[in-house]
Amino acid sequence: MNEHGERRECLRERARAKGWDGFIVTYPPNLYWLLGFSGSSGTALILNDRIELLVDGRYFEQARQETAECIVVQSDRAFDPALRKHLPAGAILGFEANHLSYSDYLQLCEWHDGGRLRAASGWLEELRMVKSAQEIALLEHACRQTVQVHEDFEQQRIAGATERELAGLLEFLSRRRGSEGPSFSTIVASGEHSALPHATPRNVSVDSDEVLLVDFGLKLDRYCSDLTRTSPGKTPGVEEIAAVVRRAQEAAIAEVAPGVKAKAVDAAARGVIEGAGYGDRFLHSTGHGLGLEIHEPPRLASGVETLLETGMVITVEPGIYLPGRFGVRIEDVVVVTETGCRLLTSQLE
Amino acid sequence: MNEHGERRECLRERARAKGWDGFIVTYPPNLYWLLGFSGSSGTALILNDRIELLVDGRYFEQARQETAECIVVQSDRAFDPALRKHLPAGAILGFEANHLSYSDYLQLCEWHDGGRLRAASGWLEELRMVKSAQEIALLEHACRQTVQVHEDFEQQRIAGATERELAGLLEFLSRRRGSEGPSFSTIVASGEHSALPHATPRNVSVDSDEVLLVDFGLKLDRYCSDLTRTSPGKTPGVEEIAAVVRRAQEAAIAEVAPGVKAKAVDAAARGVIEGAGYGDRFLHSTGHGLGLEIHEPPRLASGVETLLETGMVITVEPGIYLPGRFGVRIEDVVVVTETGCRLLTSQLE
Repeated sequence: MNEHGERRECLRERARAKGWDGFIVTYPPNLYWLLGFSGSSGTALILNDRIELLVDGRYFEQARQETAECIVVQSDRAFDPALRKHLPAGAILGFEANHLSYSDYLQLCEWHDGGRLRAASGWLEELRMVKSAQEIALLEHACRQTVQVHEDFEQQRIAGATERELAGLLEFLSRRRGSEGPSFSTIVASGEHSALPHATPRNVSVDSDEVLLVDFGLKLDRYCSDLTRTSPGKTPGVEEIAAVVRRAQEAAIAEVAPGVKAKAVDAAARGVIEGAGYGDRFLHSTGHGLGLEIHEPPRLASGVETLLETGMVITVEPGIYLPGRFGVRIEDVVVVTETGCRLLTSQLE
Repeated sequence: MNEHGERRECLRERARAKGWDGFIVTYPPNLYWLLGFSGSSGTALILNDRIELLVDGRYFEQARQETAECIVVQSDRAFDPALRKHLPAGAILGFEANHLSYSDYLQLCEWHDGGRLRAASGWLEELRMVKSAQEIALLEHACRQTVQVHEDFEQQRIAGATERELAGLLEFLSRRRGSEGPSFSTIVASGEHSALPHATPRNVSVDSDEVLLVDFGLKLDRYCSDLTRTSPGKTPGVEEIAAVVRRAQEAAIAEVAPGVKAKAVDAAARGVIEGAGYGDRFLHSTGHGLGLEIHEPPRLASGVETLLETGMVITVEPGIYLPGRFGVRIEDVVVVTETGCRLLTSQLE
């Protein structure tokens, strides 16, 4: 049985334990994780004795190539009335309640006795939190290529290019290293603009003396990377703030280990930043899981009780934002190991 | 009142006509359309006397800069229990049932009397279908830049580059023309791979003799473009198929006019392709609306009864896919005018 098959068995076992006969999956990252199907839409029925995958005509050929174990069915759309006759009458079926919209849920109730549908929220995300050795290898490869892209970028960036051109350069250099595309909208923010944590790149030239914050990632073999670097330029005060952010990141990384609560990692970073007097200028959580998606559980945030486990892959990205002046964020990716964690965004040899 | 304000009045009027007191909006493109807020998450309460916008810390500063008319509230997450105390007790509130997940809906029922929530599906998408003069100007600008990017690409592409590098080149050239990023995952498919309508670019070199299908778009001032071109290379048979696809596209474009059903445009393209004997090789619908999102209603597909209206902006993109050989798709964007339609993907002067 391949890795996709093992994952399906895991899901089936959980569903059987609840007395359910099957599970409906519609969320593309989960379709890929369970079936290896990489299209942007599809509906899978994971039953005990078979898997049916409904796709529209764009993906029929592709689905057949990618998913040898599925019965692939072509319909007008992946989620349309054609589904009705594939839902086994009387079956108790789970569905992804955190992804199916309320109106699609009402639709589904028309196609299948609503009393036999069971809302399951985040089941697959929970299973996906701990990565397999193969997934960790893919994430490490993606992360290390990203560090390399940033190095290429530092050598090739030209003073006077706009934020958008620099974003384009990061994306192009990522493609040169085999990327399937950006894992999220590239952030390039210079000067005061860097004080907005999720700034959109502007058509504004970047002077080499200015602070430059870049936050970008790539997809390689479907897995996402995520990296933030802040170059201080010659702006007064940036180095001092950057030193605080670095200490916060070190404290958070030192905290990461199996059995530690996600909120404790956040608290470690936040403690350092609060201690330096910038507690109210750290405007977001300390990090998040990543894998097939750029944001996966667990969130490293206050109140999150999730226990870290060996094999989880998370970002650690504290920041300090001073409106009207500048912002500094530093982000790396680590994998939780038996003894603590290991940096995935390390340099290539 | 600015354009965002007029749109909110439109929504409020529809809600009042139903006897509702307000509307909850969570879908980012709709938040932008109604408020000008460009963050990736937020929850807006559109009430008759005020608008409240909940965002997380990443977007607080940005939301205040972008939305002068809103009361901006910072909470841990945009959709979290903090919402409860902002929902006016006893108010009847509509929500976007086609975007809110079933589990978020259940959550909302805990924060506000479920009996006073009203599912509204696709209201805002319906309002967004007909574009304003300003939106059409932005879409035209984005489309014409995209044609120009394709011209730059034809001049600069190098034989032997991989599909992924060529995708990167398209994206970089888009950035050079001011793009905020790709409007969807760039498709570059050469040779046999072009027979998959939604192919993912591979790490495979492209020979200049091969068929090359590129389908890409950019975002400019938040509005999306979408363009597909197929270069025949020297593969036998491609020119003949391309001639059929061009005729199908011409027939579809000739059909576009106010009062025409969306399905009639699809039928016009499909008729030409069926007449040439390739009916079963046209694997998708003929087109879709575009605007703030790459796929918006109306779909130009069989069974879609929506009447075209002046100001709708749609793609027209028939294709023929011959597995094991090649595929050809040609895609342009038109705006529906009083007398028919006008091409937006035309050359710059």
